Amino acid sequence: MKVSIISTGSELLKGTTVNTNLAFLGQALTAAGLTPGRGAIVPDSGRSMTEALADLVPVSDIIITTGGLGPTSDDITRQVVCEFFGLKLKEDPELRKKLEAHWQCLKRGHAPEALFSQAQVPENAVVLENRNGTAPGLWLNTQKDGCPKIIILLPGPPSELEPMFMEEALPKLEAIAADRTFTERFMVAGAAELMIQKQVEAVIGDLPVELAYCASAEGVRVFLTGTDRLLLKAKAAELKTAFGNAVLANDSLSLAEEVSFQLRSRHFTLSTAESCTGGMIAAAITDLAGSSDIFKGSVVAYSNEVKEKILGVPAEILKTHGAVSEECVAAMVDNICAGFDTDTGIAVSGIAGPGGGTPEKPAGLVFIGVRVKESMEVKKFNFRGSRETVRGRAVAAAFRMLRDLLFRQ
Amino acid sequence: MKVSIISTGSELLKGTTVNTNLAFLGQALTAAGLTPGRGAIVPDSGRSMTEALADLVPVSDIIITTGGLGPTSDDITRQVVCEFFGLKLKEDPELRKKLEAHWQCLKRGHAPEALFSQAQVPENAVVLENRNGTAPGLWLNTQKDGCPKIIILLPGPPSELEPMFMEEALPKLEAIAADRTFTERFMVAGAAELMIQKQVEAVIGDLPVELAYCASAEGVRVFLTGTDRLLLKAKAAELKTAFGNAVLANDSLSLAEEVSFQLRSRHFTLSTAESCTGGMIAAAITDLAGSSDIFKGSVVAYSNEVKEKILGVPAEILKTHGAVSEECVAAMVDNICAGFDTDTGIAVSGIAGPGGGTPEKPAGLVFIGVRVKESMEVKKFNFRGSRETVRGRAVAAAFRMLRDLLFRQ
Repeated sequence: MKVSIISTGSELLKGTTVNTNLAFLGQALTAAGLTPGRGAIVPDSGRSMTEALADLVPVSDIIITTGGLGPTSDDITRQVVCEFFGLKLKEDPELRKKLEAHWQCLKRGHAPEALFSQAQVPENAVVLENRNGTAPGLWLNTQKDGCPKIIILLPGPPSELEPMFMEEALPKLEAIAADRTFTERFMVAGAAELMIQKQVEAVIGDLPVELAYCASAEGVRVFLTGTDRLLLKAKAAELKTAFGNAVLANDSLSLAEEVSFQLRSRHFTLSTAESCTGGMIAAAITDLAGSSDIFKGSVVAYSNEVKEKILGVPAEILKTHGAVSEECVAAMVDNICAGFDTDTGIAVSGIAGPGGGTPEKPAGLVFIGVRVKESMEVKKFNFRGSRETVRGRAVAAAFRMLRDLLFRQ
Repeated sequence: MKVSIISTGSELLKGTTVNTNLAFLGQALTAAGLTPGRGAIVPDSGRSMTEALADLVPVSDIIITTGGLGPTSDDITRQVVCEFFGLKLKEDPELRKKLEAHWQCLKRGHAPEALFSQAQVPENAVVLENRNGTAPGLWLNTQKDGCPKIIILLPGPPSELEPMFMEEALPKLEAIAADRTFTERFMVAGAAELMIQKQVEAVIGDLPVELAYCASAEGVRVFLTGTDRLLLKAKAAELKTAFGNAVLANDSLSLAEEVSFQLRSRHFTLSTAESCTGGMIAAAITDLAGSSDIFKGSVVAYSNEVKEKILGVPAEILKTHGAVSEECVAAMVDNICAGFDTDTGIAVSGIAGPGGGTPEKPAGLVFIGVRVKESMEVKKFNFRGSRETVRGRAVAAAFRMLRDLLFRQ
């Protein structure tokens, strides 16, 4: 079964919205052995959408569209798909009632007729209930040029799409899917992509396994894909053993997950003192459900005043060495561990840029300190790139330093 | 000039990487009047990439590809594009020298031959220098079926792609672009999409302006697109006046930008005390360059111990009302403003879920407190959705509450 995804929305091509729906659907479909083969991004234009359908329908068994199901005039997915497949739209009286009832709750007067475009349903379609919004999803069993096609129309807002897909669409897909492919993946922290490829290829050789690599600030993700699930599992296990400590444990695919896992397995707690990363480390850790058992909290000390008054960095250090210095992060990490009473700590101070740099302390200069019980380590980094890149690299480096120090205990 | 973007990388379809490159290119191209018309996502497979080229080359004047230029075996963009257009690849001796020199710096022994695949350049191509990595970009002036086509190959890592595109590719594109379209956009905070559409349509009527809307937890973004830049500017100004205070000022397209702007124009400072949002509000504010003049810092109080010891929430409140209560966030916001000596403050405490809820305090229950000088306000919310959705909605609601209180001063 070949799956393609068509993401609709002018905002995706204008770049004001990042297409997180594709990543969400890709993950969920891959886990079910139905990795999408192609994706298309189209603006809210009937012509472009029809072009994308003409391109992808012939090479796909299942097409999933996202967006364009709402009540405004740029929401045209329903109509365009029906025209493409020659299906008629009919109003569903149940849906109309629901929309009417929802509108009344908002107490905004008489419901505009445009609202009820969301009650239009193609003939023989199955309605996918939307528990988090008004536009229902649709599941169509139809055909094109004599070949059966499944078309799934999902709403654009992630908070509506995600539960609808997981609860209504995925179980139906899993029930009908044949010839699935599976993927094993693991992440190697901070190593060169080419070195990793060499080791992976030596183990896989001529086996029917497709290889892919994805390098980021955090490390390299390795993907093994194929139809033989047992073979994939065996080879992934062999490779993980070969890479040893460099592989993130517990199938983690991010350093935040990995650090949380390593802390939890040691019953250690963490606190952070962040300046230029401004709460990103705390936000990454607390993004994971259940983080309260390892994470106590953070002080985001963006001003020197807060570094001195709240974190207790001596005024002498700030005066002599400045806030972006080895001495300052050392005091920050010591004091956050003491103040928050945690086993481990991370402190970051640097110049994220683009402004704020000097010849001695240029944008990109970041000091990172980590502490595990009685051991403490401070390193100096000179990151290149935009503000976002510098902040992202600082977060990755901080997690890697803490991980290394945990392993050295 | 019609622009299409082909994003290559199996990780994009497997969902382990979010396609931020498309958003970046979309924004930069839109600002230059060259909004992309179509996007395609393909895995690292020659067949899929060729299919996407066959689909998009006929409807595009300019094709931009991202990814697949590195040294590993799944990096095949260069070869596939050359085969598609019938171009020969030749090694560039200058590039080979640079790659060799870079490898020697890494002190990893003899350079593997695979490294030098990055020195292969199609005939007549212009090399786009990569100052942040090894794989150079490529600019091809070629043709298909007699029509001239420009093909731009960019590397996948955002830290390499972004500066290369802005410094090397965009100036060349701007020099040759004809028939540009322009976009005016603004954001209306927290209003119903349909209400906004009605008002916008009344102003635009039959004018040659294309309309689009994008709703999110923060509000609704309105896009006016067309070729008449002056008309767009005039109509956008008229609409902004009509929406009044609901429109974010200073062309802000996010509540973090808006709140920063409103604070800066009043010379006010901000501090935050975050529990369930875990540093996200601080991270969003400090994501903006120059935020140090309005933002002093944050206490991420994830444990009750930190709420009591560091934020000074009375033990009595935590015992009687719990950490997720009106009383607790009121104490949090008062104490963060006093402790960090700021004019304004935000405090958030809630249950992000999926675990941790009880019948009285279910997952999604969030209390938010904001303070501006002597005024303080606390509200209770029951957000629906995943952990990520609840946290995102809490951040948006907190920014909106602070904004509203600032306007009421």
